[in-house]
Amino acid sequence: MTEQARSGRSLWGGHFEADPAPLMTQINASIGFDKRLYAQDIVGSMAHARMLAAVGILSPTDRDAILDGLERIRGEIERGEFVFTTELEDIHLNIESRLTDLVGEPGRRLHTARSRNDQVATDFKLWVRDAMDRADARLKELQRVLLGLARTHAATVMPGFTHLQAAQPVTFGHHLMAYVEMFGRDRSRFQDARRRLNESPLGAAALAGTSFPIDRAMTAADLGFDRPMANSIDAVSDRDFALDYLASAAIAAVHLSRLAEELVLWSTPQFGFVRMPEAFTSGSSIMPQKRNPDAAELVRGKSGRILGDLQALLVVLKGLPLAYSKDMQEDKEGVFDAADSLELSLAATAAMLDGITVFPERMKAAAGVGYTTATDLADWLVRVKGVPFREAHGIAARAVKLAESKGCGLEDLGRDELAGIDARIDAGVFEVLGVERSVASRRSFGGTAPERVLEAVAAAEARYL
Amino acid sequence: MTEQARSGRSLWGGHFEADPAPLMTQINASIGFDKRLYAQDIVGSMAHARMLAAVGILSPTDRDAILDGLERIRGEIERGEFVFTTELEDIHLNIESRLTDLVGEPGRRLHTARSRNDQVATDFKLWVRDAMDRADARLKELQRVLLGLARTHAATVMPGFTHLQAAQPVTFGHHLMAYVEMFGRDRSRFQDARRRLNESPLGAAALAGTSFPIDRAMTAADLGFDRPMANSIDAVSDRDFALDYLASAAIAAVHLSRLAEELVLWSTPQFGFVRMPEAFTSGSSIMPQKRNPDAAELVRGKSGRILGDLQALLVVLKGLPLAYSKDMQEDKEGVFDAADSLELSLAATAAMLDGITVFPERMKAAAGVGYTTATDLADWLVRVKGVPFREAHGIAARAVKLAESKGCGLEDLGRDELAGIDARIDAGVFEVLGVERSVASRRSFGGTAPERVLEAVAAAEARYL
Amino acid sequence: MTEQARSGRSLWGGHFEADPAPLMTQINASIGFDKRLYAQDIVGSMAHARMLAAVGILSPTDRDAILDGLERIRGEIERGEFVFTTELEDIHLNIESRLTDLVGEPGRRLHTARSRNDQVATDFKLWVRDAMDRADARLKELQRVLLGLARTHAATVMPGFTHLQAAQPVTFGHHLMAYVEMFGRDRSRFQDARRRLNESPLGAAALAGTSFPIDRAMTAADLGFDRPMANSIDAVSDRDFALDYLASAAIAAVHLSRLAEELVLWSTPQFGFVRMPEAFTSGSSIMPQKRNPDAAELVRGKSGRILGDLQALLVVLKGLPLAYSKDMQEDKEGVFDAADSLELSLAATAAMLDGITVFPERMKAAAGVGYTTATDLADWLVRVKGVPFREAHGIAARAVKLAESKGCGLEDLGRDELAGIDARIDAGVFEVLGVERSVASRRSFGGTAPERVLEAVAAAEARYL
Amino acid sequence: MTEQARSGRSLWGGHFEADPAPLMTQINASIGFDKRLYAQDIVGSMAHARMLAAVGILSPTDRDAILDGLERIRGEIERGEFVFTTELEDIHLNIESRLTDLVGEPGRRLHTARSRNDQVATDFKLWVRDAMDRADARLKELQRVLLGLARTHAATVMPGFTHLQAAQPVTFGHHLMAYVEMFGRDRSRFQDARRRLNESPLGAAALAGTSFPIDRAMTAADLGFDRPMANSIDAVSDRDFALDYLASAAIAAVHLSRLAEELVLWSTPQFGFVRMPEAFTSGSSIMPQKRNPDAAELVRGKSGRILGDLQALLVVLKGLPLAYSKDMQEDKEGVFDAADSLELSLAATAAMLDGITVFPERMKAAAGVGYTTATDLADWLVRVKGVPFREAHGIAARAVKLAESKGCGLEDLGRDELAGIDARIDAGVFEVLGVERSVASRRSFGGTAPERVLEAVAAAEARYL
Repeated sequence: MTEQARSGRSLWGGHFEADPAPLMTQINASIGFDKRLYAQDIVGSMAHARMLAAVGILSPTDRDAILDGLERIRGEIERGEFVFTTELEDIHLNIESRLTDLVGEPGRRLHTARSRNDQVATDFKLWVRDAMDRADARLKELQRVLLGLARTHAATVMPGFTHLQAAQPVTFGHHLMAYVEMFGRDRSRFQDARRRLNESPLGAAALAGTSFPIDRAMTAADLGFDRPMANSIDAVSDRDFALDYLASAAIAAVHLSRLAEELVLWSTPQFGFVRMPEAFTSGSSIMPQKRNPDAAELVRGKSGRILGDLQALLVVLKGLPLAYSKDMQEDKEGVFDAADSLELSLAATAAMLDGITVFPERMKAAAGVGYTTATDLADWLVRVKGVPFREAHGIAARAVKLAESKGCGLEDLGRDELAGIDARIDAGVFEVLGVERSVASRRSFGGTAPERVLEAVAAAEARYL
Repeated sequence: MTEQARSGRSLWGGHFEADPAPLMTQINASIGFDKRLYAQDIVGSMAHARMLAAVGILSPTDRDAILDGLERIRGEIERGEFVFTTELEDIHLNIESRLTDLVGEPGRRLHTARSRNDQVATDFKLWVRDAMDRADARLKELQRVLLGLARTHAATVMPGFTHLQAAQPVTFGHHLMAYVEMFGRDRSRFQDARRRLNESPLGAAALAGTSFPIDRAMTAADLGFDRPMANSIDAVSDRDFALDYLASAAIAAVHLSRLAEELVLWSTPQFGFVRMPEAFTSGSSIMPQKRNPDAAELVRGKSGRILGDLQALLVVLKGLPLAYSKDMQEDKEGVFDAADSLELSLAATAAMLDGITVFPERMKAAAGVGYTTATDLADWLVRVKGVPFREAHGIAARAVKLAESKGCGLEDLGRDELAGIDARIDAGVFEVLGVERSVASRRSFGGTAPERVLEAVAAAEARYL
Repeated sequence: MTEQARSGRSLWGGHFEADPAPLMTQINASIGFDKRLYAQDIVGSMAHARMLAAVGILSPTDRDAILDGLERIRGEIERGEFVFTTELEDIHLNIESRLTDLVGEPGRRLHTARSRNDQVATDFKLWVRDAMDRADARLKELQRVLLGLARTHAATVMPGFTHLQAAQPVTFGHHLMAYVEMFGRDRSRFQDARRRLNESPLGAAALAGTSFPIDRAMTAADLGFDRPMANSIDAVSDRDFALDYLASAAIAAVHLSRLAEELVLWSTPQFGFVRMPEAFTSGSSIMPQKRNPDAAELVRGKSGRILGDLQALLVVLKGLPLAYSKDMQEDKEGVFDAADSLELSLAATAAMLDGITVFPERMKAAAGVGYTTATDLADWLVRVKGVPFREAHGIAARAVKLAESKGCGLEDLGRDELAGIDARIDAGVFEVLGVERSVASRRSFGGTAPERVLEAVAAAEARYL
Repeated sequence: MTEQARSGRSLWGGHFEADPAPLMTQINASIGFDKRLYAQDIVGSMAHARMLAAVGILSPTDRDAILDGLERIRGEIERGEFVFTTELEDIHLNIESRLTDLVGEPGRRLHTARSRNDQVATDFKLWVRDAMDRADARLKELQRVLLGLARTHAATVMPGFTHLQAAQPVTFGHHLMAYVEMFGRDRSRFQDARRRLNESPLGAAALAGTSFPIDRAMTAADLGFDRPMANSIDAVSDRDFALDYLASAAIAAVHLSRLAEELVLWSTPQFGFVRMPEAFTSGSSIMPQKRNPDAAELVRGKSGRILGDLQALLVVLKGLPLAYSKDMQEDKEGVFDAADSLELSLAATAAMLDGITVFPERMKAAAGVGYTTATDLADWLVRVKGVPFREAHGIAARAVKLAESKGCGLEDLGRDELAGIDARIDAGVFEVLGVERSVASRRSFGGTAPERVLEAVAAAEARYL
């Protein structure tokens, strides 16, 4: 069922700014955005033509004319010579019409056993599949930068925060490895989505399948799909693949927003943990030392936009009866926008981190503020002296109070002073006090001890790069 | 504090597809979309220049040079001659730079006592204010079309639905008047938002105000604002006006989606209540009688996009410290998109309704299916015979059962048959049976009796048009 | 059209965990949450009964029995003695059934000329109206606390941030006044919404109005509404008032999240601007000096939930045909949740601020970091010496470079050093250097000069309290 | 770092309705909802205790006391005897405190090498994992019902809709199989999410790991996780698993809303394709034949709520620095709500479909309205007679016009009449005209021919049940 908008022919009383026909064109035409599908539309049509010929619906001569014509169109588009027209509504009709201009009669046979409904589903799936692959590749690049930094800073001590208050010392490398894990999950999400997407809608026709003896497995294989979709109605009404892309992008964007927030915080004079590369900041013409972390802020902000794109498509599809409704034309711009935003955010984040300057001494100093090794003292009492957990905590709290009153760190208390608090404390305790010792002691799997971080870097490199 | 991105000068290791500078330009430059603010930027600068001269900061000669230059730039942009450059990042610098080209030295004095932060807030507010006015005007046009239809169909009987099941007869005019009310509330929402918006940020400078003796009340009045904003930090960090626009647009879009859903339903062969104007449908090249309500579906779909735009900006602003953060650059595209979508949806809906064909006989037939006047029988018993409400309902239910068993309508039962069910039923009951009598009887204020509908139309015309 | 779920009578094959009837009860019954409407349901019924009697539908005796019965039910509910049953589905039937138990026959007459559709719309509107009033009152309390703090700290210098980097000095009072403005807009939003809400749906009956000679203006006045709603279909299908509440709550929640973010930042040791009151923090049993700003974090987090509630109802209503559909039962829980969350967040924020400890010396020290008075130097050159704006900025930048090289502040440079940069600089410049002088100089309306802040406090007190 | 809220001790000026302490309790305590995690908390603690004993940190005696105590607590909770107290804030402290009551000293040793941060992450992950399994099982049950119906109705002809207009005939079984595919993807989404979730956070401690020689692989295996999470900071800050659940639930809910919309439409008198089972409808006390599809409407409506829950958590996490912030306490209620809503919707949908009455004759009649076999005529011309596609469509359009003018179907035209339109049309064409023949002809893979539908049912049964 090939459907085309018929031009408005009704009389029009002049009540509105726009005539109905232009208004309809404005709301209806999609060529303004779906031209981004040109490459997918061409390879989809090529696969369809090859299949039609293979099963005898199209002659080899016609097939070759079509393939040749499509190849020429691709060239025209890529060289910027192709003239898109709004009258032909969408990318499919623009290309088909040009094909008939170029090759005549065979062009009119290409649409046999196909409909715009399965055609657009195929094109859009191919585009989204590429976008998933690009997201995966950019996430991998970002992991690579993070892994490089994590290796360099496996032993660089910084505060581990809870509630944005220093809680325990960790290493900067360890902190960055948390993001390697997050982005690893993001990649697995895109990979799962790709696997779920990878069934071909082509051959579902308008919605019911076709009476032509087509070979859907052949077009599926030609286009890199694992198999044809099992149900023709589902094939034309399904936009799960777009939702999967958007949901994956939204979660990745939230991860990026968390990292961007940290970069903004860390590059304040108050924290002073890092300096952002000049290229990704803006300054002031008058305050040359000022460095505004613009790119990080934009990455953080773009998460809003991607979340909006996800919600938009969920809403579009909510309550929509099968099979195809025109509402579904609202599927593409949001995905394009989310993909552009995500890819740019990933590239910018990787580049920012690649050029970042780290100030280890600022980090280390901050790591010790607030008696962040008090738990180390308590754990030492439990571990070495067998003191019950809750009792050990009470002792540590008294030690903190003493240090506070003396205005010094826990590790600066004398052995006698500590023993005065609890006789079981001996010189061994100094093995765990001090932020570097604290960090070194946390050797449990996945812990922040530098040796563990280096192991984690090696394991992640093997897994992800 | 005028801030400009400094070009990337750092060495770059070649790890990424894009150099940092192009990447930064790509994520950072806003000229691609904020050029839509050109008219607002120009009138804002004009008001600023006039004020600077009035308080003696600028000479009359400089002011005139600036005003003249800005006027010429407006002409250049409107004639499509202006060359926008990405290097100059945004509309403000593009225009200021061109101004200095055109008028020299005075151009360099324009930015005195102003910052990009208050400038962009002013420009965007002026744009959003216009968008609110346009929304109000388009809603009014839509109300006008609805009122015309409602007057024509004040007595056209159709089913009133609950749960999409006929519940009680109403008139088509009455049904349409429900939308007149909804769109009336939408207008009041935009009007309230406009009033809340209408304070001028200009003169807040970067965020702290300025030491120049500026007259903020003067620029406010010049730009049609009611007064200057009371706090300079709020002036540059506030985007409530954009949220107000988006929230109002989202609610209006939901209203439009409900009407669009009804148009889609009503134009199915199964309902057959209306035929959509040809210009707003698509057909099939092969099934000439097929009329797909594409425009209505697109209106319904676009609600998703507007809801997404609202959520996006809420997310962008969530958790953002004061005053200005670059995340806020993500405020404009969503508002532009929502405004375009809303305005197009309003115009298309008005035009669709203006050209709609109504089938009163199909509506009336559907209104009687399902004994929709059973409540009229019950109410008559209560009203005329003093039967308690719950008892009356039981009697009516027995009458329905009888009619059902005879395969006829309630009004087709004989007087004796009805009296056999309950002796209190007499000939008077026929005054209320039948869908037209039912409709005529609902004369309570706001009810569906045709005379009430005509009164409501008149009242709404007086109030809204 | 009073509709009641009929109990499941179909045979059931045992394929599912739950029988249909329990499943249906589980998904259908609303008494679990709509019991929160009990007070509104009772006053709505009282108004209805008084009106029915006034127009002669109900006898004075019946009316009095009903009023008395409803009063007794209110007492039972408030004393916790009322037994709610799920079999009676919702609050309306629970109360009506109990009323008939208590007063007999008259109870069965109460529902005359009314339907659950207009009843629930009335009840819910009354509830939401109260919630709007509560929000307004809590916002006012929060403004009161902010105004008190702002007055105290009208001259307390702190950094004004852009991009979370100090940009120009401001005062803490001035910063807080930005929130007074935001919350003022929030109040006006709730007030506008209340005005828009304040029309009575009662008397719309199922959806078509009624044939009884009711007086809708009387019930409207009785319930504090400005007038009856003009269209009966709109009256039962409209949930704009709930959307208005949610949109207003969402914007207020975003404002609260921005303030909460700042409180979290300011209370880090790195910023050290404030200490949160102990009661609203959590500590560690072992690190007694640790203060986690839990309440501020929860306020920030709850914004997510309120945004979700808004989106949820927009989605529920999207594409819903008129008049009443059961989907609309999903309107209440989100509004209840948003109201609880907002009210709690407002109270907690006010209480946190009321108990906050401010460290002015930390704020002031931070205000001077980064040559934040460089713009003051430039503005002085423009203002006092007539140097063009862009040239003045160049001179200031050179002064900053000199101070940077000497490791001192701008105000610490000697007069000769400054004159060496540009001969036009004389001793007068020291009037504006230094963060306090900078602040004092920004005397434009809405600016941060302490005298302006005090004026703004006074004006806001007059306007808001 | 075990952290506990300290009670409010500050003086309080009486400005607020609530004292700070109660206010803080109200906003801070989670026991009201996190008690749903009791079973997970207990098995998590049991695994931890067994591991502590295995590595020598806990004595076998202490371990046994703990295990025994926890088992008793589980019994108390399940019998409703356990007293939850808000003072103990959350489920973890409620259980730990009761454990110490029951078993004394050993209870105080349980929390060794653990923190509330990794404990809550573990508990919540276990809960979400169960919810994923329940969703999968309920989706499977729904697929089972759909497959049964599809098999029964493999040859039941109905209209295939595009734009809610009949486009081509399909079978009801084929239509239902589209949903089997959708729910199949939903299951794969939950399965992927489960795999991604299935790494244990336990042993990450507060955020840095621990100095105790714990065996994280052992607790991971004990709790059915595939492995421990690789990074301790990620372990406590990650809520991807909750987002994955919510995103999967949102997409499934959108699918359910589409089916629900169709059920609502199909059960109108206008469509009349199905009758909903009485148990899942509401009627009217007065219109006994009225069947409101309440359950379907509620399923459709609940999609809004689940979309809102997804958005809420995305917003909560947006811009949150690592590791744990209290905002994250807002993660649970939304997931609980979404899970309850989804599970109820799935069960109700399965039960509704199980009891549905289908009217094949109404479906078949509707399938023929609108010359839905015109494409069959065109395809026959292409397939059998070699007519080019676009030419064949022109011929078919002329045949439709003729039939329309005669007021008959295409299959009712005479052979001569058809030949008069185009001489190539012969008697063979009647093989494809008529809705049943049309359906039978669409034998492409995934097409609607009954034999293909039966094959699809068999394949899906093998794959999914």
